[in-house]
Amino acid sequence: MADYRAAVESRDRSSSAPASRPRPDRAIISWLIERSASQNHRVERVPLSALQGWSTKPGDGDLVHQSGRFFAIRGVRVDAGPQQWTQPIIVQPEVGLSGMVVRRFDSVMHCLVRAKMEPGNINYVQLSPTVQATRSNYTRAHRGSAVPYLEYFQDTDPRHVLVDALHTEQGSWFLAKNNRNMVVEVDRDIPVEEDHAWLSVSSLQSLLRSDDILNMSTRTLLACMGAAGFVERMPRGPQTSLSRPVHDSFLAQSGHHSLDRVRAWLDQRRKERAATSEVVPLRQITNEGWNLGAESIRHERGRYFQVVGIDVSATGREVRSWQQPIIAPTDTGLVAFVARRIDGLLHVLVQARVEAGAAAGAHIAPTVQCVPGNYEHLPADQRPRYLDVVREAPASRRHYDAMQSEEGGRLFHARNRYRVVEVDDGFSLDTPPDYQWVTLGQLDALLVPGGNLDIELRSLMACTRTLA
Amino acid sequence: MADYRAAVESRDRSSSAPASRPRPDRAIISWLIERSASQNHRVERVPLSALQGWSTKPGDGDLVHQSGRFFAIRGVRVDAGPQQWTQPIIVQPEVGLSGMVVRRFDSVMHCLVRAKMEPGNINYVQLSPTVQATRSNYTRAHRGSAVPYLEYFQDTDPRHVLVDALHTEQGSWFLAKNNRNMVVEVDRDIPVEEDHAWLSVSSLQSLLRSDDILNMSTRTLLACMGAAGFVERMPRGPQTSLSRPVHDSFLAQSGHHSLDRVRAWLDQRRKERAATSEVVPLRQITNEGWNLGAESIRHERGRYFQVVGIDVSATGREVRSWQQPIIAPTDTGLVAFVARRIDGLLHVLVQARVEAGAAAGAHIAPTVQCVPGNYEHLPADQRPRYLDVVREAPASRRHYDAMQSEEGGRLFHARNRYRVVEVDDGFSLDTPPDYQWVTLGQLDALLVPGGNLDIELRSLMACTRTLA
Repeated sequence: MADYRAAVESRDRSSSAPASRPRPDRAIISWLIERSASQNHRVERVPLSALQGWSTKPGDGDLVHQSGRFFAIRGVRVDAGPQQWTQPIIVQPEVGLSGMVVRRFDSVMHCLVRAKMEPGNINYVQLSPTVQATRSNYTRAHRGSAVPYLEYFQDTDPRHVLVDALHTEQGSWFLAKNNRNMVVEVDRDIPVEEDHAWLSVSSLQSLLRSDDILNMSTRTLLACMGAAGFVERMPRGPQTSLSRPVHDSFLAQSGHHSLDRVRAWLDQRRKERAATSEVVPLRQITNEGWNLGAESIRHERGRYFQVVGIDVSATGREVRSWQQPIIAPTDTGLVAFVARRIDGLLHVLVQARVEAGAAAGAHIAPTVQCVPGNYEHLPADQRPRYLDVVREAPASRRHYDAMQSEEGGRLFHARNRYRVVEVDDGFSLDTPPDYQWVTLGQLDALLVPGGNLDIELRSLMACTRTLA
Repeated sequence: MADYRAAVESRDRSSSAPASRPRPDRAIISWLIERSASQNHRVERVPLSALQGWSTKPGDGDLVHQSGRFFAIRGVRVDAGPQQWTQPIIVQPEVGLSGMVVRRFDSVMHCLVRAKMEPGNINYVQLSPTVQATRSNYTRAHRGSAVPYLEYFQDTDPRHVLVDALHTEQGSWFLAKNNRNMVVEVDRDIPVEEDHAWLSVSSLQSLLRSDDILNMSTRTLLACMGAAGFVERMPRGPQTSLSRPVHDSFLAQSGHHSLDRVRAWLDQRRKERAATSEVVPLRQITNEGWNLGAESIRHERGRYFQVVGIDVSATGREVRSWQQPIIAPTDTGLVAFVARRIDGLLHVLVQARVEAGAAAGAHIAPTVQCVPGNYEHLPADQRPRYLDVVREAPASRRHYDAMQSEEGGRLFHARNRYRVVEVDDGFSLDTPPDYQWVTLGQLDALLVPGGNLDIELRSLMACTRTLA
């Protein structure tokens, strides 16, 4: 019995555009559903102590893979001036690659995205960049790699490299993890694999108004492309847009403060907020609020996140399965800009922020970046600044508002509500020292070299760009 | 090992709106993907002669179920004046119910749609009405039915019934099949099943711009609601809209001709095109171009459609499987309006059309309704009228253009390209006797009582309404 679907597929395909051409807007949702439904995945929970291939290092308590590869769960002790804390953290001393192949069809920029499964993703399959690869894939690839399209990011003619920079990933959960973000342009037909498709940047921006479709790496690469000036078309859509056009704000490098002054502010904050983080054996933090159990690693008050074990199976053309630890946040986060016109130009309020995994240097972060549930037990004056402004903004002032997923390979259902809230001219321009009003153009300028903006901010910039 | 996804589901749900509330636009695509991915389906081809439960009636050759229930494949001989032909046809002497439960949330009309699997659907799962049930379900339901929400369509207070009319289904493939189309309004919280969700009418209209998301019954119910005046809000979206607002055209019952004159034209065509169709044993048509094989029933030239057998299995919470014959068209069809302003008011060109399954009375059909591939072998002057106008229209004049699926329970991957093409004032108003210029408001008036418009036209009216 042959699969009848497969038997008639060639007929159906013949009535659509070939895969090497862009997929029209009208066909995108159907393609997403088709790719998701064609891959069967299952994630089941396994006690950490029973994870195949993983063990607890005697003495240390660190959770490591027996091959020494992949990643480890260790402890970290952070000293950031007034704040000190310890927590488990993912140690993965590799630079990964997030690479997008792009092409202009009729002058319109398109991205070759992949409908890719990750065990921690909402819905398993989300749109990822053309290639996501670890450094071991990346450097050994010339000896023959199974990662499709990797060759486009190796020995590439520099004239075709639109973006190439190192950026950090979530400092709350990863220790000093950097990823190489690359965008490479092609100008000819290339083969398109079954899970890949050419989507226009404006289609991707439309999808970014929906929950949980574009994965974290795709969002941050869109932000990189925008900052580098390669997102030329702004979509028009049913979403409310900011009360006046923000296009100028995307370009303006001079705002309430000059770009130089913003840079000086960041340097200053980095000096004043110099913090240290020390990797310690997991066992050392058990007396400081964290319980290491056979089942999971969790905070004694049930807050922040757990480390749990999962068994993953993907049944499709080939059966694959594996087991791994994964970090499961206990609650949904909030990542938001407070935005305000200053002399007619849209500004957003940003903060200099220290995280466990990037303690050495503060990064610029959105106005609010937190898990509100972790602060419910505290008095109002100890909760994150501006949290109430963002939460209480009426719907008419919430210009962007959607749920997006963070990394799905190491984080399980880690979601943030991304929001852009516009306040009126009565909102004070005075800010505490860790906060600063900047234009979107200034953020673009700070994004380009890498290392200044945290990943939540880069995601939020991609979301904000959909409003133009 | 518990499913970890299920274990954390309640947490994820808690961060979203409860299911009894409308699902916001941003969450719809993710929900569609989630419902599609959570249902595993498989359709495999089986020779007709090996179909479990089905057999060929000795002598007749008709394909029937051993219980006498469901449906049968028989032959039909059509005499429509200059044209005579024979073909296999689905005989299903039951009136089905397509029922939509609707509710106004904050005055905005919402529909309780179902993400429902049919074996012949592209992607298996499409959005269907709240209830689709056969008459046997329907009439026996008071003895306890497994069809959720059926009770909302039984003994309903007439004040809550917004739409209730009998409409025909595809006359090309079904013999005299009528469906009861009902829309019932509720004004209180009701339980929402896992595969159901409240979506606004404007969300559904946005989804109708995408290929293969809304099934045939949902599209035709939207057309019924529009005709009955219950679609008050028109969506604004990125799709090109007609060059001037068409809102007036949706209401205008007086156009190039009065509504009475349009009705008189239809009556006249019905008299002049009086045709007959006679159900005959399938064996009788084998000498007239159709081959009855153990594998399939097909036309000797490979045209039109095949009848094939399928084995369907749906693995999910409960395993279900069945076998059935299904009609698989050999090619994609085209369903299109040629639209033109007449004295500033948008008109569309319609035809009076006779089909095998509804030969007794011509129905009003779109300007073009055909499978172009079936005519490629004919000289240009024998191809369907206006086909070239619709096919050759430049993209800027194609105001609606998407692929939609027809019924998925009896038809396999039956798809039509739906298109609205606007021509300029130079396009002749003279029409052959079978064609007529009408306003959309006139079509609404003709739709309401049922029995006048074929199902492709009703679908196309729902598509056209997204342009307002």
